[in-house]
Amino acid sequence: QHLGMVGLGRMGGGMRDRLRGAGLQVTGYDRDPDATDVDSLAALVEALPTPRAVWVMVPAGDITHSVITELAGLLEEGDLVVDGGNSKWTADEEHAQQLAEQGVRFVDCGVSGGVWGLEAGYGLMCGGAEEDVARMMPVFDALRPEGPREEGFVHAGLVGAGHYAKMVHNGIEYGLMQAYAEGFELLLAKGIVTDETGCFKAWTRGTVVRSWLLDLLVRALEEDPALEKLQGYVDDSGEGRWTVQEAVENAVPAPVMSAALFARFTSRQADSPAMKAVAALRNQFGGHAVHT
Amino acid sequence: QHLGMVGLGRMGGGMRDRLRGAGLQVTGYDRDPDATDVDSLAALVEALPTPRAVWVMVPAGDITHSVITELAGLLEEGDLVVDGGNSKWTADEEHAQQLAEQGVRFVDCGVSGGVWGLEAGYGLMCGGAEEDVARMMPVFDALRPEGPREEGFVHAGLVGAGHYAKMVHNGIEYGLMQAYAEGFELLLAKGIVTDETGCFKAWTRGTVVRSWLLDLLVRALEEDPALEKLQGYVDDSGEGRWTVQEAVENAVPAPVMSAALFARFTSRQADSPAMKAVAALRNQFGGHAVHT
Amino acid sequence: QHLGMVGLGRMGGGMRDRLRGAGLQVTGYDRDPDATDVDSLAALVEALPTPRAVWVMVPAGDITHSVITELAGLLEEGDLVVDGGNSKWTADEEHAQQLAEQGVRFVDCGVSGGVWGLEAGYGLMCGGAEEDVARMMPVFDALRPEGPREEGFVHAGLVGAGHYAKMVHNGIEYGLMQAYAEGFELLLAKGIVTDETGCFKAWTRGTVVRSWLLDLLVRALEEDPALEKLQGYVDDSGEGRWTVQEAVENAVPAPVMSAALFARFTSRQADSPAMKAVAALRNQFGGHAVHT
Amino acid sequence: QHLGMVGLGRMGGGMRDRLRGAGLQVTGYDRDPDATDVDSLAALVEALPTPRAVWVMVPAGDITHSVITELAGLLEEGDLVVDGGNSKWTADEEHAQQLAEQGVRFVDCGVSGGVWGLEAGYGLMCGGAEEDVARMMPVFDALRPEGPREEGFVHAGLVGAGHYAKMVHNGIEYGLMQAYAEGFELLLAKGIVTDETGCFKAWTRGTVVRSWLLDLLVRALEEDPALEKLQGYVDDSGEGRWTVQEAVENAVPAPVMSAALFARFTSRQADSPAMKAVAALRNQFGGHAVHT
Repeated sequence: QHLGMVGLGRMGGGMRDRLRGAGLQVTGYDRDPDATDVDSLAALVEALPTPRAVWVMVPAGDITHSVITELAGLLEEGDLVVDGGNSKWTADEEHAQQLAEQGVRFVDCGVSGGVWGLEAGYGLMCGGAEEDVARMMPVFDALRPEGPREEGFVHAGLVGAGHYAKMVHNGIEYGLMQAYAEGFELLLAKGIVTDETGCFKAWTRGTVVRSWLLDLLVRALEEDPALEKLQGYVDDSGEGRWTVQEAVENAVPAPVMSAALFARFTSRQADSPAMKAVAALRNQFGGHAVHT
Repeated sequence: QHLGMVGLGRMGGGMRDRLRGAGLQVTGYDRDPDATDVDSLAALVEALPTPRAVWVMVPAGDITHSVITELAGLLEEGDLVVDGGNSKWTADEEHAQQLAEQGVRFVDCGVSGGVWGLEAGYGLMCGGAEEDVARMMPVFDALRPEGPREEGFVHAGLVGAGHYAKMVHNGIEYGLMQAYAEGFELLLAKGIVTDETGCFKAWTRGTVVRSWLLDLLVRALEEDPALEKLQGYVDDSGEGRWTVQEAVENAVPAPVMSAALFARFTSRQADSPAMKAVAALRNQFGGHAVHT
Repeated sequence: QHLGMVGLGRMGGGMRDRLRGAGLQVTGYDRDPDATDVDSLAALVEALPTPRAVWVMVPAGDITHSVITELAGLLEEGDLVVDGGNSKWTADEEHAQQLAEQGVRFVDCGVSGGVWGLEAGYGLMCGGAEEDVARMMPVFDALRPEGPREEGFVHAGLVGAGHYAKMVHNGIEYGLMQAYAEGFELLLAKGIVTDETGCFKAWTRGTVVRSWLLDLLVRALEEDPALEKLQGYVDDSGEGRWTVQEAVENAVPAPVMSAALFARFTSRQADSPAMKAVAALRNQFGGHAVHT
Repeated sequence: QHLGMVGLGRMGGGMRDRLRGAGLQVTGYDRDPDATDVDSLAALVEALPTPRAVWVMVPAGDITHSVITELAGLLEEGDLVVDGGNSKWTADEEHAQQLAEQGVRFVDCGVSGGVWGLEAGYGLMCGGAEEDVARMMPVFDALRPEGPREEGFVHAGLVGAGHYAKMVHNGIEYGLMQAYAEGFELLLAKGIVTDETGCFKAWTRGTVVRSWLLDLLVRALEEDPALEKLQGYVDDSGEGRWTVQEAVENAVPAPVMSAALFARFTSRQADSPAMKAVAALRNQFGGHAVHT
């Protein structure tokens, strides 16, 4: 199989390497001349045998949308596009219809694994028609971790289901990270435990909380035990927000996911308008001192 | 009735004034020579007719405990002590027993109203035996707001019930303040509403959210519309913490009260150890940039 | 001024009455033949002097949209529509443009006050152009509570600002209600306070937590002290959801508002899928008994 | 080494088996005649060579306290007690002093691993003096998972540090479980993902959220995909409560841990007093229908 790959950044570049390592042929396109194999999207399409398969791995939103729009103009009936980026699941149906007008098929695929995926394999969740997913299976099998297919890959449902699953995955991820983080802060605050790094490390084998994230936290703590070199400033991708908004939309209580998201919002505020209001109220009713 | 008042700070001083304004005789003792009427606690006890009634209005914890211990050594059978401070309800039973050994009676009384109570009256919640509460009723009636007694006073239960009620009151207060504060921040963040102060003010008469706290927020906003002169740094008294701990102890879900309390904790952190851990994790798995 | 009122339910009916009580002329239309003054929307438009003013007070969403669409076909240049329902603020711009194509003006107006508004007046937050708001001022003045205008009315900003303000108002309302509710449950759970109703009532005059909602809670408790006649099943209107989604959209931490919303979601679940998952996990790792 | 083991339930019984499997000699005592090796605690002490080492593995609280008290009366100078149960860390110092009066040493040890520990090994976090921990190391090495010692064992600090670490571990565990659980509910609620079990399974190898708890959730879902055989009723051990109370005590924001704890509280309520209060309020101000 010969795959086209659009977007060769941290994720797309690693995926190209992993696919090639598995013996698949990949032609990649990126705006970065140092990364790209061809000069343009048109050249990429040109280079692929028909029916073509093109994996789009670019930032979600406008960029993904414009790449897919451009591809719709270049591809032919029977070709297939996979959106492997972090698109919102609602964009998938739109893209599928846009491509379908040219007879081009569409599969959405959520990809997890970060910078480790190149070596360890990427967790994949895809959505689309049975035959389209089947056609891409050699690619999925090369990308996913070794071992049983179902432990690193799922055909989650029709178009949109892959990104929906990835979105929920990320919402869970937010919650997991925050849980460890609160534990870290509590250990630090009390001081009765004098070896915090040792504690986290001791949890990595036999305990209920063992996980890959825990392994990574231990790595980070071994490099910088009190995390003194870092600021507690945390960005959030769109997916954490979408998960909470979806939960609200579907009347699903999501206190943990939303708490984790709100903690990130707060972490980026130089000062909190809300807490100014609370300070103002305390001053008004109790004459409590305020910080000015 | 001639009452002894120990502690003549913002609250106790205002209460002495209000009681005198109502025609009661009050002798006050405070360590501050400018505030006190007598030189010592002993002199205060000396000055009161028997059976004596002494209202203790000093900071909760060690100071309240030492004042009550000293009073236990000075008072006589039939005297009565009211603890009107923000003591933890669990301290009340202890103090009641300590005093009971000398035949001295004890009533606990939660007092709300802040600096406004001098003029508007104080909301009172007390705990103790029927006859002890009855004996103090002229004092309670003078302190509470005008109007029906039951709208500003409650005999909530036996010893401890008054402070318990006050604790719950403060937990509610935390939640109310945070609710308004979140609304304020959301109005500011969006910018579609161009008159935030006007909005809050327009809510003060006809809406579901009208309240005294809202009136105070409007006052604060009228003085400083964007609260620019304040920092979003908010202390917490013990009572907010006790409420959440009591909720946990009694298996009562308290997501709003605890969220309000945690927001105060966060407001005082120069940096968040927990969010450092989250930043470290994101960097480990995704190569995400961190702020250093 | 002669106003058309579309929708004569609990809110719209009360508003017609209040307006008439203030000496304004109101012709109302409702699908309910017992409530309506005229047979059709067309007849309503017919009955009004030009330039007409029509207040729409129907359920948000499809119904509001279809009423406004129908009005766009019936009204003329210079007429004005007020949407006083609980529409999402994003619908306002759309409706304004739809009407503008016919030269019809638009003002959005959030209305608070519930069934009490008829007597006490309604809190009003409106959005729109200066001259349109000015034109409706006699209506606003009749609807709002007596007292200074700015304590019951605000021109919050351009089109959409009124409903945005109302949305935030409702988010705050959710938080306030939940705060009182958690306090109620904690008082009940502990049992040291033996007069819960008396407690809440004693807070209504002198304390920091006094509010209109507290007055209502006391009313409810006086009718049914342990609320035994009720189920803890609570609906949520769209506005609570929108507030949380807007907070997420604007990176505003809203832990209290979201906790209050999630508590409502949970209250309506016969069983919780999430907690089944937690039960399943505990059983898997610890052999803990599960309820089946 | 010859160890005495008090308490041979699910945990203690498994630990006895694992220790024996590792070639250590263990004499166990349990009130259950089918499980015990000896007739009484006195007989257990009698059976052990001096200096003795006794591992207490009984329910935290009164039972642990009475076992340790009885042991204090039976053991001699130079003997050593390990409390491996889920005791509150504040009990450890008390027990250490109680035993020290007889010259008996004390080590506290948090144990994780559940019913899987027998085979996979138990994660261990202990607190105590260097020499006491060193003396028990053969036992710790036999109990912990194979692999590097520091990945399954930590000497976390002085007496109390082991149980403190275990408490924080459990707080984290609550948060992790709830994060997965919210994701599960969201997948179910939306329905776009048609293979929920497949989704969770596909996350177990290559994704950021892979963990042992996730593996267990997949096991549970493979047995019962919609968890129909379970009720969403979840108990909580003391440790989750202590973690939140400690967080409050130390001014550490713990929104995720507390949300997870409160979700368990709610899961056990047939009806929610708090939500009755909210329903009552909505009915009061809006005339909203209530469920009775």
